[in-house]
Amino acid sequence: MPLSSCLKSIEKECAERRKVRKWTKVAQEASPSSRPAEESVDVEMVPASEVVPGDPEEESIYHARELMLPRLLGTVENQLGIRKWFESQGHEYIVLDSKEGADSDFQKHIVDAEILITTPFHPGYLTGDLIAKAKKLKLCVTAGVGPDHINLNATVKNGIQVLEVSGSNVVSVAEHVVMSILLLRNFVPAHEMIECGDWMVSTVACNAFDLEGKVVGTIGAGRIGYRALQRLMPFDCKELLYYDYASFPEAAAKAVNARPVEDLKDFVSQCDGTLGLVNVEPLKHFKKGAWLVNIARGAICDKDAVAAALTSGHLDGYAGDVWNVQPAPKDHVLRTGKNTLGGGNGMVPHYSSTTLDAQARYTSGTKNIIENYLSGKAQEPQNIIVGIGKHETKSYGQR
Amino acid sequence: MPLSSCLKSIEKECAERRKVRKWTKVAQEASPSSRPAEESVDVEMVPASEVVPGDPEEESIYHARELMLPRLLGTVENQLGIRKWFESQGHEYIVLDSKEGADSDFQKHIVDAEILITTPFHPGYLTGDLIAKAKKLKLCVTAGVGPDHINLNATVKNGIQVLEVSGSNVVSVAEHVVMSILLLRNFVPAHEMIECGDWMVSTVACNAFDLEGKVVGTIGAGRIGYRALQRLMPFDCKELLYYDYASFPEAAAKAVNARPVEDLKDFVSQCDGTLGLVNVEPLKHFKKGAWLVNIARGAICDKDAVAAALTSGHLDGYAGDVWNVQPAPKDHVLRTGKNTLGGGNGMVPHYSSTTLDAQARYTSGTKNIIENYLSGKAQEPQNIIVGIGKHETKSYGQR
Repeated sequence: MPLSSCLKSIEKECAERRKVRKWTKVAQEASPSSRPAEESVDVEMVPASEVVPGDPEEESIYHARELMLPRLLGTVENQLGIRKWFESQGHEYIVLDSKEGADSDFQKHIVDAEILITTPFHPGYLTGDLIAKAKKLKLCVTAGVGPDHINLNATVKNGIQVLEVSGSNVVSVAEHVVMSILLLRNFVPAHEMIECGDWMVSTVACNAFDLEGKVVGTIGAGRIGYRALQRLMPFDCKELLYYDYASFPEAAAKAVNARPVEDLKDFVSQCDGTLGLVNVEPLKHFKKGAWLVNIARGAICDKDAVAAALTSGHLDGYAGDVWNVQPAPKDHVLRTGKNTLGGGNGMVPHYSSTTLDAQARYTSGTKNIIENYLSGKAQEPQNIIVGIGKHETKSYGQR
Repeated sequence: MPLSSCLKSIEKECAERRKVRKWTKVAQEASPSSRPAEESVDVEMVPASEVVPGDPEEESIYHARELMLPRLLGTVENQLGIRKWFESQGHEYIVLDSKEGADSDFQKHIVDAEILITTPFHPGYLTGDLIAKAKKLKLCVTAGVGPDHINLNATVKNGIQVLEVSGSNVVSVAEHVVMSILLLRNFVPAHEMIECGDWMVSTVACNAFDLEGKVVGTIGAGRIGYRALQRLMPFDCKELLYYDYASFPEAAAKAVNARPVEDLKDFVSQCDGTLGLVNVEPLKHFKKGAWLVNIARGAICDKDAVAAALTSGHLDGYAGDVWNVQPAPKDHVLRTGKNTLGGGNGMVPHYSSTTLDAQARYTSGTKNIIENYLSGKAQEPQNIIVGIGKHETKSYGQR
């Protein structure tokens, strides 16, 4: 079947699927311009509140039942679960969604804000220009992990602290890694077949593998990569490998029994499965039929090279939740790319680090950071990205 | 949406899906009467060969490319990978697919067969009547695990040995258990959303959980259940529980740090997730929102009670690969049953124990058993279900 008619079929299938799945409802009910709630949460505390809690206009944007679940804290509606607490302290708390352009609520309110809280997915970007205007800003908190949306040098210069809820995502993401690897059992085609009323065991089994006895490697073995290796330990893989600029301390290395490999080509040529800097050149050196799981950054894997490797059979699967552009365009090649047997795609939207459990962690961590700030208590060192007037971590690149 | 129109939508969706997925091809190309290859493998060695290797009629049944993959050993085409070896030893080897009714190849050839090899999924049933006619039969081998298709008392009486490739499936199934549990991360709706071109992180995250901090219990903690617990260890669950007639030996219990619970109700009321005897009564005692994974036997979970619990929200998910009837009828309620949020279904056809790795294990195990038989060497004790004139294991129920 030529690709064009294949895509047309998927399009028709999805039209049917939208009728059945609850998530359709959200797509239909949300206003066309609105973004998924979780990605558009910016929370500011400023002297004037323009968004009144209970404001019907604000709340009409997302009224699907599931978005009202009280445990889904990282949404415009649930406001990180801290409005009551915030207001009981006598502060004003503005939750906003409009954050692009000079007329956006974000750019209007930043002028008076003392604390800026942002989730890391689709944040308002705090550029040097905005920082110059934000004369009252003292604290930026990422409700989650990462300061990519903030001009850190400008915050240092202006005495603005930058904190994150360090580690709030690591377990969630490491679990997602292991789940993504286990999809090599050919789960997706098997489940689709069941739902469609078919039953062809051979067709499913012909590309189903055990994890036992395979070589699994991680490119990047930091807090997430290490936790993934810990969880892979009892699966009796043939070998666990890692590629990183730093080796594990001896005890940590022993605990996961993982071997460092210094050369990237050498590394990928040994792996049956790899947690993904992968473009055309390293892809050539992958074992034929390997699985690639990218849970780090979309841009580190060349999407077209990956899609071509799936089509040619060089890769048997590609899974993960990060995309070179987010949200991924509707026609992104990795949404529908399949291996030669029609399976091997385990991609999901970028949500592995925002399970309900992770939301509980990052919202309570955010609250702790703000409590410390308001009461003058010392912050937990691992959460400090920028202290008063100085960078405190090397985790976020060269400066 | 009423259930009828919901099912109609799924039907239309699947019609589109079949156009795209490679497994469609097989459904279209296979003759209507044929069963999935993997499930219909019965291999007999009898003095007369009626199925010539290369016979175009025999081989035309399954000609989708994937079924020809040499690693897919458990098929009619690949004949467990032992035809050459068998024939090089001077034996005749008949592979057959027709096994129901007095005119079937199975009932014709069993009269002269010395060895009967069967895969455990949709075997020819070796009843007492057939055993009475099978005067030359000396050895039955399950290429895999389990003798449910054999009248064991009749084999004892007739001096026919029954062997299996014990343990050939345990790792595959235990891995499937862990994968099925990790689906509580809401993978299925998330992946479907990506393929359809949508991107609504909140809608996915609103029912995505971490495994960390949850209570996981297994009803039945034999070789598979224990291996599942081993693999769950590093996920830092709140507690691992098991319910079985026998407790683990002390060292084994310590190794997985799992606590036995003696009362089934008491057991399920403590679990966030449970590996599957669950009918209406025990279901009542489940925690609201629990996940149920059944990887043992379809009949141990009451399908209608499970479906009702999904619909009411009492269960948040149901996953596994065993069904009360196999192949499951097209309208089986657990093919399309969803939780209140439109997800929570992780069902697949019964294939977890027949990954390519498992096929390699059970075919080489089958060959070893036959080599031992032909050369008069002792069989490995764990593989013997029925020795000459006596039952050797208590694993397969009361007799």
